[in-house]
Amino acid sequence: TFSRGLQTVTLIPGDGIGPEISTAVMKIFEAAKAPIQWEERNVTAIKGPGGKWMIPTEAKDSMDKSKIGLKGPLKTPIAAGHPSMNLLLRKTFDLYANVRPCVSIEGYKTPYTDVDLVTIRENTEGEYSGIEHVIVDGVVQSIKLITEEASQRIAEYAFEYARNNQRASVTAVHKANIMRMSDGLFLRKCREVAENFKDIKFTEMYLDTVCLNMVQDPTQFDVLVMPNLYGDILSDLCAGLIGGLGVTPSGNIGANGVAIFESVHGTAPDIAGKDLANPTALLLSAVMMLRHMGLHGQAKKIETACFDTIRDKKVLTKDLGGNSKCSEFTGEICRRVQDME
Amino acid sequence: TFSRGLQTVTLIPGDGIGPEISTAVMKIFEAAKAPIQWEERNVTAIKGPGGKWMIPTEAKDSMDKSKIGLKGPLKTPIAAGHPSMNLLLRKTFDLYANVRPCVSIEGYKTPYTDVDLVTIRENTEGEYSGIEHVIVDGVVQSIKLITEEASQRIAEYAFEYARNNQRASVTAVHKANIMRMSDGLFLRKCREVAENFKDIKFTEMYLDTVCLNMVQDPTQFDVLVMPNLYGDILSDLCAGLIGGLGVTPSGNIGANGVAIFESVHGTAPDIAGKDLANPTALLLSAVMMLRHMGLHGQAKKIETACFDTIRDKKVLTKDLGGNSKCSEFTGEICRRVQDME
Ligand SMILES: CC(C)[C@H](C(=O)O)[C@@H](O)C(=O)O
Ligand SMILES: CC(C)[C@H](C(=O)O)[C@@H](O)C(=O)O
Repeated sequence: TFSRGLQTVTLIPGDGIGPEISTAVMKIFEAAKAPIQWEERNVTAIKGPGGKWMIPTEAKDSMDKSKIGLKGPLKTPIAAGHPSMNLLLRKTFDLYANVRPCVSIEGYKTPYTDVDLVTIRENTEGEYSGIEHVIVDGVVQSIKLITEEASQRIAEYAFEYARNNQRASVTAVHKANIMRMSDGLFLRKCREVAENFKDIKFTEMYLDTVCLNMVQDPTQFDVLVMPNLYGDILSDLCAGLIGGLGVTPSGNIGANGVAIFESVHGTAPDIAGKDLANPTALLLSAVMMLRHMGLHGQAKKIETACFDTIRDKKVLTKDLGGNSKCSEFTGEICRRVQDME
Repeated sequence: TFSRGLQTVTLIPGDGIGPEISTAVMKIFEAAKAPIQWEERNVTAIKGPGGKWMIPTEAKDSMDKSKIGLKGPLKTPIAAGHPSMNLLLRKTFDLYANVRPCVSIEGYKTPYTDVDLVTIRENTEGEYSGIEHVIVDGVVQSIKLITEEASQRIAEYAFEYARNNQRASVTAVHKANIMRMSDGLFLRKCREVAENFKDIKFTEMYLDTVCLNMVQDPTQFDVLVMPNLYGDILSDLCAGLIGGLGVTPSGNIGANGVAIFESVHGTAPDIAGKDLANPTALLLSAVMMLRHMGLHGQAKKIETACFDTIRDKKVLTKDLGGNSKCSEFTGEICRRVQDME
């Protein structure tokens, strides 16, 4: 891979513990000799011409060039009318697929074992359209927007993901019994796309039924595809099954290879700057990123080192049940990565 | 209670296993000398004048008089345009609060213990408004409708429920960070009502965060109140934590004492008529009904007999891990009820 030269990645360290865990990831990448060159950028939205919120030009330009971003947690600015930074990033780069693999981590005890599923969330429309009205005093409507185009695109993404990742089945999650037209359209597109992927088993299930079955036996699920809000809910639920947002990676995928990988936990201001943070979620997101870039060797090495460290239980951050500092946990992973050379 | 004479309850046995489990409940009520007179009615919707779907007059009249219904599972008719019977019943009688207590059942093993929470779902509007449009070809919108009136009504119900049932806290579940106006209105009403219930702790939490925290530690939750769809999802998730819909009671509450209690599992056509069904969900719904009617003595007796039977593990239906028939399980509960006399 080295012969390809260095690839640039836009690094958005984020707020709170963001810079610490970003540093941890950079150190581990260095230890693994990942051929990455970081371009650090701040994305906090500014008011552009016409009063529209936008991410700063420097950050936008970097992403447009590199196409790949790695992002720590961002705090929601309190300025009136300031948009959620997560939503603004998804929108700016049309990151239409949110992908969250949830895999049980050996040695990190939860009530579940052998979870191995992926939630694929439509990331651009649905309940997140932002269109709302007051009809009359005391009566409000929010509009859920479902389009054929976005539904088809996410369905295709899900099936292609399944095929490329040796996954056996895709389940479409919906409430088309209630939202017959909108979820109905989403479901119809999934069915149509399924026709082109005869090697992948296709099933459909109501969202409520998925939730119930999920907590009873998550091992029955494989790849799940769904509209925006359902994905927001299910991805968090599934993260809970394997230990929470501190260990769950996430990727936001757009067209033409554009993607931002991110840890979806908070900024943890209470422990920020104290060398106590757990970099696992950002690190595993960075591993997803490496795979996205075709750097499978380094991805495997880093992932193995991370999981081995957790399984060993000797050097763990507090939230993982240990006493070690972020830098010690990071050092342990680096050591293991280097041992693999 | 006997001096009050018999109270009439409209019994909607339902389809599939509905009649069997209804019979089981009637037997157990008889054993407990519950002062109930059943009026059996069929609610399957018919096309009324003007082509509007409605429940048959006989059933409507019975409910209007008795005010209280007990309902088994109903199959969704396949006739084109036929509405969901569950939704039609909620609408016909304006059953605005859906109440589902989820309590761990001793002796019935799940990954969780000590779950003891109640989901209270707004049952009339939100994502269930049924208003949908095609905007242009391939673009569909569904309207989520939130009103001040319905939000206030359900918030008041939740806090009153908490107070009357010695519960310490109410959590409003929302996505007001995304649906700022609609969920924002719902949340504002919850906050306002909370002001009048200083004895009950009030908290607010995002739906995704609730899902994540729920599967990590459900014991942190008490009473949860939320808009329609979120309640659909969370109530099923929580049912999963304690063993599924086969053991989870449900009540749909309207104004002026009107209410329908129901088991929310399916009709299980594969085992219908074979004396294999588990009547627990309908029985516990009937226990909720007794409490609603002020018949606390009989409610306690039946509930205790049911839980003791499950804890004992000697006479259980198949789905509960045993080999007994529905009639044997029912007989065991009757025996225990009679022993308490
Ligand atoms: C921060 C918030 C806007 C976001 C969402 O609701 O999508 C978050 O919950 C997520 O899942 O990324
Ligand atoms: C049957 C269906 C219409 C219903 C719903 O979605 O509300 C069911 O899931 C429920 O929770 O009672």
